[in-house]
Amino acid sequence: MSQTILITGGVRSGKSAIAEGRTLGFGTPAVYIATAQAFDGEMETRIAAHQARRGAEWRTVQEPLDLVGALAATDGAPRLVDCLTLWLTNQMLGGHDWQAAGRDLCAALARQTSPVVLVTNEVGLGIVPENRLAREFRDAAGLLNQWVAAVADEVIFAVAGLPMKVK
Amino acid sequence: MSQTILITGGVRSGKSAIAEGRTLGFGTPAVYIATAQAFDGEMETRIAAHQARRGAEWRTVQEPLDLVGALAATDGAPRLVDCLTLWLTNQMLGGHDWQAAGRDLCAALARQTSPVVLVTNEVGLGIVPENRLAREFRDAAGLLNQWVAAVADEVIFAVAGLPMKVK
Amino acid sequence: MSQTILITGGVRSGKSAIAEGRTLGFGTPAVYIATAQAFDGEMETRIAAHQARRGAEWRTVQEPLDLVGALAATDGAPRLVDCLTLWLTNQMLGGHDWQAAGRDLCAALARQTSPVVLVTNEVGLGIVPENRLAREFRDAAGLLNQWVAAVADEVIFAVAGLPMKVK
Repeated sequence: MSQTILITGGVRSGKSAIAEGRTLGFGTPAVYIATAQAFDGEMETRIAAHQARRGAEWRTVQEPLDLVGALAATDGAPRLVDCLTLWLTNQMLGGHDWQAAGRDLCAALARQTSPVVLVTNEVGLGIVPENRLAREFRDAAGLLNQWVAAVADEVIFAVAGLPMKVK
Repeated sequence: MSQTILITGGVRSGKSAIAEGRTLGFGTPAVYIATAQAFDGEMETRIAAHQARRGAEWRTVQEPLDLVGALAATDGAPRLVDCLTLWLTNQMLGGHDWQAAGRDLCAALARQTSPVVLVTNEVGLGIVPENRLAREFRDAAGLLNQWVAAVADEVIFAVAGLPMKVK
Repeated sequence: MSQTILITGGVRSGKSAIAEGRTLGFGTPAVYIATAQAFDGEMETRIAAHQARRGAEWRTVQEPLDLVGALAATDGAPRLVDCLTLWLTNQMLGGHDWQAAGRDLCAALARQTSPVVLVTNEVGLGIVPENRLAREFRDAAGLLNQWVAAVADEVIFAVAGLPMKVK
């Protein structure tokens, strides 16, 4: 059965652990679709920490941009996309049309025959950033979250490692 | 029947769309009380996008400061106040006593004979801003939200376009 | 009966008032364990405002670092720890091993014979800070919140002065 679950929340709110548990609940082996690109040592450390927590039940696919293709190539297994916020960053930094990419992603989610759990971030609950690009990014991130939440079967807001049901 | 509903959440969390739906649910025509002032092109674009989404069921009133007066003048119709955070900004930038204005607003809400839906923002869930004015603003915004929530019949926290019931 | 309650939320979200009500609900006199250190006038004003709201039902203990000791010394009465985020700040600024301190705190919570209500902050729902120390702090704060939430009997997310049940 296909199912789409969106897990959102702040940094270090336990989103990834919740998402991993939900994905493995659909069966193993599961596919971890990592959107992160290691630009610097700080990001490398974070990616390594995430990988260390995952075990042999996972196959990892790295795909910074083409999520539609990665989902098509892995359909049949439970998938975890971690995370939409980095994917959006990659789209925007690469000069791509993130709105078109977001719409394509939502259309692709509806075509899957196996579950997809997506992790995303809440970035719009602080003071308005002084940096214009940061303001544009948090606007885009909020809209993308709304679009994916609209097509998701379930939406969870993670607080202190615990899931709050939104939808 | 009078009713006061507060819709809070982050930037681009779908607060305005939720608030518009709730306001129209009380009947039409409804009054949109806009507190925004277009200081620059970025804000003009945002105001225009909000107006484009609203249709002929709305009459728009622009009132950056005197919400008590705007509510008195529109009592009888369902009202949407969008948003309290910009109203607070206008109060503070104009050198007014925002605490007195906030108390007056709460008292006025209790006097209305038709519903009022108010949109506000959560701005206090990020790192402490280095800018002192930003710290004072987020303190004020949090207090104002508490005061209005205390007199509201219903409080909703918007996440990814979806409403979570707080009260 | 021992009980551990974690109250989290943004700045000025009413966390402390909710926590005070829950602590006094366990009986009086209660102990207020303040982790704040007044480094400057702004913080002094904030501490004074918190103290003014508390009445004679409270005994105040100031302990910026040794929460394990403060809990041991006050066991028997209901305790309010306000707040974990400042305690974490004190640990990090003092060059201490905050991860070890966090684990010790969680172990100590399990040993208490009277209730402990802890206030903490959500600081990870804004845009990624440009400052590296700020990024490390919000990562640490999120992890600490997860650890304490995992051993807590109840977790509350405060929004606009109102409690949302997380656990």
